[in-house]
Amino acid sequence: MDAESDQLPAILQSPELDLVEWRLDAFIARQGWPKTRKLLTVLASSEHRCPVLATNRPERQGGFYVGSEAERLAILAEAVEAGAEWVDLEDDLAEDPTQRFRELGAKVVVSHHDFSQTPGLAEMQGIVRKSAARADCIKVVTLAGAHQDCLRVLQLIPWGRDNLQMDVIAFCMGIPGRWSRIACLLLGSPWTYVRLVGSPEAAPGQYTALETRALLDMLL
Amino acid sequence: MDAESDQLPAILQSPELDLVEWRLDAFIARQGWPKTRKLLTVLASSEHRCPVLATNRPERQGGFYVGSEAERLAILAEAVEAGAEWVDLEDDLAEDPTQRFRELGAKVVVSHHDFSQTPGLAEMQGIVRKSAARADCIKVVTLAGAHQDCLRVLQLIPWGRDNLQMDVIAFCMGIPGRWSRIACLLLGSPWTYVRLVGSPEAAPGQYTALETRALLDMLL
Repeated sequence: MDAESDQLPAILQSPELDLVEWRLDAFIARQGWPKTRKLLTVLASSEHRCPVLATNRPERQGGFYVGSEAERLAILAEAVEAGAEWVDLEDDLAEDPTQRFRELGAKVVVSHHDFSQTPGLAEMQGIVRKSAARADCIKVVTLAGAHQDCLRVLQLIPWGRDNLQMDVIAFCMGIPGRWSRIACLLLGSPWTYVRLVGSPEAAPGQYTALETRALLDMLL
Repeated sequence: MDAESDQLPAILQSPELDLVEWRLDAFIARQGWPKTRKLLTVLASSEHRCPVLATNRPERQGGFYVGSEAERLAILAEAVEAGAEWVDLEDDLAEDPTQRFRELGAKVVVSHHDFSQTPGLAEMQGIVRKSAARADCIKVVTLAGAHQDCLRVLQLIPWGRDNLQMDVIAFCMGIPGRWSRIACLLLGSPWTYVRLVGSPEAAPGQYTALETRALLDMLL
């Protein structure tokens, strides 16, 4: 096991986290699937751990997974069978595997990423509306070119709640989007994405969990 | 002189402030106009002081000033003649005294306060548009009933800049509006309103200057 794997049990029990996103694509890229598969047993053996969101992001969506789509989803299914409570499914999937994951007992985050810009509000509302029927939570993350882009993205949170009775996690990547990673929680997103202490940012602008909690305490 | 007056020179030279709002109505309510008038000489005698925004808020707008409208404006004019660089004029004035204050050398903040709610976006855009011709900066402050109210108010900042080439200070009062006092700066408001260390909040939710700077450093 490498340092990353050694730390996994402690990360899963971090008192400052509410949920852990396990980026299986990053683990598989660094360690291969056989080793990562063995690590999944920690989900069953770890006591009092955080809920886990299993993500296996493909290259086309900015992730590291390079295998076939069927293999990618099979890996996610194994993660759920091993104990992951949530899966992240990108909103560009040709077929909708939500039912399959729900039958395995998982809840589904349908995610949309735009790494080039922040679209107009109506376009983003369409993105949320399209996924609402097959999601337990919708994630929309876009690149902020300016601070004001955050205002459009953040509007999706009360809009989704009021119009679709849907939890929406919506914030911007990039330095001008940094503050929206905190503001989304104020507006009702069930969680935000933080980096682990000592780890590089998984996306530009990420705070640590402790920074996030300190900012929340001051802003609430 | 009381403690408040004693502190005035130091406040005007605070390195952590960019501008000092002098609430003349509060001074006059506590000390009377003759004493407050004498204090105005500090504006000319204080070296390297912050720019000063003179505000004489009437009771109808949540302030303490109870005299006639003519006297109220005459006091503001004296403050400008004494050296104040800015005046705050409420947007409900029957006549527009902007020209008079500009001729005295002051810049004008036209302010709108809503202590009961946050109106819809179109209504607030109308409020900003109405004042644009007679303002160097427009201030819109509303009461937030929920965090999402802040998103509407904050939109006025890029909207005013893009559509009216106007600096807009826009944020929400109340605890759910707290974060908008910081976010308005990210979006381009030229300043926000803070409370002095050791002083009560002039409005619910105000931070100190140091808290504001610490939050800005983390969010920028």
